[in-house]
Amino acid sequence: MPLVHITRRERFSAAHKLARPEWSVEQNMATFGKCSNPNWHGHNYELWVTVKGEPSPETGFVVDLSMVSRIINERVIHKLDHKNIDLDVDFMKGRLSSTENLAIAIWEQLAEPIAALGCSLHCIKVQETENNSVEYHGER
Amino acid sequence: MPLVHITRRERFSAAHKLARPEWSVEQNMATFGKCSNPNWHGHNYELWVTVKGEPSPETGFVVDLSMVSRIINERVIHKLDHKNIDLDVDFMKGRLSSTENLAIAIWEQLAEPIAALGCSLHCIKVQETENNSVEYHGER
Amino acid sequence: MPLVHITRRERFSAAHKLARPEWSVEQNMATFGKCSNPNWHGHNYELWVTVKGEPSPETGFVVDLSMVSRIINERVIHKLDHKNIDLDVDFMKGRLSSTENLAIAIWEQLAEPIAALGCSLHCIKVQETENNSVEYHGER
Amino acid sequence: MPLVHITRRERFSAAHKLARPEWSVEQNMATFGKCSNPNWHGHNYELWVTVKGEPSPETGFVVDLSMVSRIINERVIHKLDHKNIDLDVDFMKGRLSSTENLAIAIWEQLAEPIAALGCSLHCIKVQETENNSVEYHGER
Amino acid sequence: MPLVHITRRERFSAAHKLARPEWSVEQNMATFGKCSNPNWHGHNYELWVTVKGEPSPETGFVVDLSMVSRIINERVIHKLDHKNIDLDVDFMKGRLSSTENLAIAIWEQLAEPIAALGCSLHCIKVQETENNSVEYHGER
Amino acid sequence: MPLVHITRRERFSAAHKLARPEWSVEQNMATFGKCSNPNWHGHNYELWVTVKGEPSPETGFVVDLSMVSRIINERVIHKLDHKNIDLDVDFMKGRLSSTENLAIAIWEQLAEPIAALGCSLHCIKVQETENNSVEYHGER
Repeated sequence: MPLVHITRRERFSAAHKLARPEWSVEQNMATFGKCSNPNWHGHNYELWVTVKGEPSPETGFVVDLSMVSRIINERVIHKLDHKNIDLDVDFMKGRLSSTENLAIAIWEQLAEPIAALGCSLHCIKVQETENNSVEYHGER
Repeated sequence: MPLVHITRRERFSAAHKLARPEWSVEQNMATFGKCSNPNWHGHNYELWVTVKGEPSPETGFVVDLSMVSRIINERVIHKLDHKNIDLDVDFMKGRLSSTENLAIAIWEQLAEPIAALGCSLHCIKVQETENNSVEYHGER
Repeated sequence: MPLVHITRRERFSAAHKLARPEWSVEQNMATFGKCSNPNWHGHNYELWVTVKGEPSPETGFVVDLSMVSRIINERVIHKLDHKNIDLDVDFMKGRLSSTENLAIAIWEQLAEPIAALGCSLHCIKVQETENNSVEYHGER
Repeated sequence: MPLVHITRRERFSAAHKLARPEWSVEQNMATFGKCSNPNWHGHNYELWVTVKGEPSPETGFVVDLSMVSRIINERVIHKLDHKNIDLDVDFMKGRLSSTENLAIAIWEQLAEPIAALGCSLHCIKVQETENNSVEYHGER
Repeated sequence: MPLVHITRRERFSAAHKLARPEWSVEQNMATFGKCSNPNWHGHNYELWVTVKGEPSPETGFVVDLSMVSRIINERVIHKLDHKNIDLDVDFMKGRLSSTENLAIAIWEQLAEPIAALGCSLHCIKVQETENNSVEYHGER
Repeated sequence: MPLVHITRRERFSAAHKLARPEWSVEQNMATFGKCSNPNWHGHNYELWVTVKGEPSPETGFVVDLSMVSRIINERVIHKLDHKNIDLDVDFMKGRLSSTENLAIAIWEQLAEPIAALGCSLHCIKVQETENNSVEYHGER
C-alpha cells in the first residue's frame, strides 16, 4: 500500500514576548532584541500539520481531514488564537514562546489524538513571519 | 505629463486589543468578541503606501522610493514594529486600534512628509490578516 | 469624518462550464474553448467584498466585519461552495457563469443587506485563477 | 557529485466529487460531506513535481526542466485541466478522486518518463485548496 | 448595462539597470544606488492588465480574455521576457527603465489593440519586487 | 533533546544568462533556450536557508536567527543582490549560473559559518521563478 503525507493548514493570531522574568530588561534586550519588548508584540502564525498513512481503499483518505482539523482547532487553535501565548495558554506555561518551543509543544498536543485516528503525526511547521519558520518531526 | 501611482510595501508585527476601558469585560466581549481578550493578541500587519505624481524626465522616478521607505520606517514602522499599539505608540494614544483607525492615523503620519518630497499621498492600505484589510484615501 | 474602505476575503470551490445550451458543442468550443467541456470543470474562487463608510467613534469600526462575513456566507458562500454554479445556485439561474456575471450576481445578493448594516457596498472582486479576476463596482 | 532536487510547478482546474456510486446519497454525505455533492464541485489544483539527480558539468542542469514540463503537460495537465476528474481522465478511472489518490496516480504517470530523462522522480505534491495538500514519494 | 473591470496577469523575467549614460558612475550611484550597477541586475516582473467594458449578453464576457492575453504576449511579454530591457526592447529605447516608465510604455503598446477588441484599457500595474509596484491609468 | 529545523528566507535580484562561452550562439540557444540571450536577463530570487539543532533551554532558540541572517547577508546576499551573477560574484566564477549550481555554491558559502554558530546547515532552497526551484541538502 502506498504511504502518503497529507497536510492541513490552520492559522492563529497571538501576542507574546521573549524574555526571561529573572533577567533584567537589558539582559533580555541583549539576548532577544526587540522581541523582548515588555508590553508584548504579536504575529499572525501559520501552522501546517502533516500526517502520514495509507489511503483507505474505501474512501481514498489517509484520514478524514475534517477530523484532523477539528482536533487541531480544539487542542491548539482555540487555545492560541487571539490570546497571549505567555499568559493564556496552558501547554506553554513555563516555556519561552520561541517558535521552536511552540512547534514542539504543538507536536505534544497533537501526536496522541492524531495517532488515535489511525495515522501518525509527521511534521509540525509553524511560520511566525514570512521570513521565519520552524519544523519539528518529533526527533530527539 | 503622465500621472503614475507607485506603492511601497512595509511590514510590522504588533500586539493590540479592542476594548473600551470604561466598559465591562462583558460589554467589550459583546462588541469586539475575541479581539477584546484582556491579555492582548497580535498580528503581522502589512502596509502598502501609495503615492502619486509625474515621473521626472531625468530619473524616470515619481519619487525616490528609498526616501519614501525611510519616511515610512521612521514615522510608522519603528514606532509599531514589535510594539503594543495600545500602550507604546504615540500617534495611537486615545484611539481604539481598529484597522480603520490605524490606517487613518498612518495617513496622518505620512501625508505631510510625503508631500515634502514633491508627490502626494494617495492611499494607505493596512492588512491585518489574509482575510481583512482596510484602505484610506484621505477622504472626508 | 473620514471615509474608509474595508475588505473581507472569502473563498469557495465550485464546478461550472461556459456553454450555451442552444449552441452546438462546436460553436461552444469555438467561443469558450476548454471552458465549455461538457462534463464541467471547476475552480477555487476567491471573493473580496469591499464596503465603505465612516468609522464609529465608539468602536472604530466602519461595520462589524463579522456581520459582513455572516451575510456573505449566508447569501453567497453557502450557495456556491462545493456546488455546481450552473445547476445548484438560485441566483445564477439563466445566466452564463462567466466571472463577470458571477461578480454582478454577487453584488446583487449583497448590496441591500450590506446597506442595512449602515455602510455601502463598494466593490465585488472575484478571482477565478491566479491569472484572471474581475471587479464590479455597481456601475451601469 | 552533488545530489540536487529540482521542482517544477504546474496548475490545472478541474471538477470532481467524492462519492461511491454503490452507496446512497446519505452514506456518501456522512462519509465525504459537501465533497459528495452529486452535481460536482471543483478546484484550482497546484502540482509540484520534484526530481533528483546530479547536475551535468556541461549544462549545470540535473535535467532540462522544459522537458520535465512538457512531460507533465502531456501526461497529466492536458488530461486534467478543464476536465472532470471522475468522468474524463483515463488514469483516474475506477479510483475515488481524493487528493491522495490523485497524487499516487500522477506519480504513476510520471515516474517512468522522468526516469527516461536520466534523473529520478522524488515527490508529487498536489494542493487542492490553500489549506489542504498531499505529498507522495513513491513509498510503499 | 453593468460596467465591469477584468484583469489578466502575465509575467516576465528581464535584466536592466538605472543609469544615465552621460553621467559618471558616481553620479548614477548617488541617484540610483545599487540599481545602477554597470553589469546589470534583473527581476521577475509581474504585470496586471485591467480592461473595462460591458459583458456581452451572449457570452457573459467583457472581452475574450484569451485575445487579451495573446495581445499582451505579442506586444509586451515576448519583447521583454528573458531580455535586457535597456538593450533589447524597441519600445523602451531612449527611456530609463524605471518601473514608472515601463508601465507607461506598456500602456502605449496595449491601449490601441485593446480598444480594437471593443473594450478599453483601464490600468497597467507592474510589480518589480514584492515590495515595489506601479500603476498607470493613462492619466495626464 | 528535540531536534528542530528553522528556516530563514532572504531575497536578491540579479542578472545572469546560461551560455558556455566556448559554444556558438546557436549551440547555446539549442541547449539553454531563451535563458542564453547574450544581453542577459534576470530574476527576483528567493532563498530559504534551513539549519537544524537542539533548542537552548535558556533561550528556546536553536540559533540566534539574526546571526544566521547576518551571515547569509554578508556571504551571499550582498554579493548577489543587484549584481550580475556571471560577472560580479566571486563564488560563482567559472560556474554556469544554473539554479542547481547556485544552490550548491550558496551551501559552500554558508556551511562552515553556520556550523560555527553551533548548529548545522540542513538545506538551501533557491526559487528562480514561481514555477522553478531547487533544493540542496549537501548530499554527494
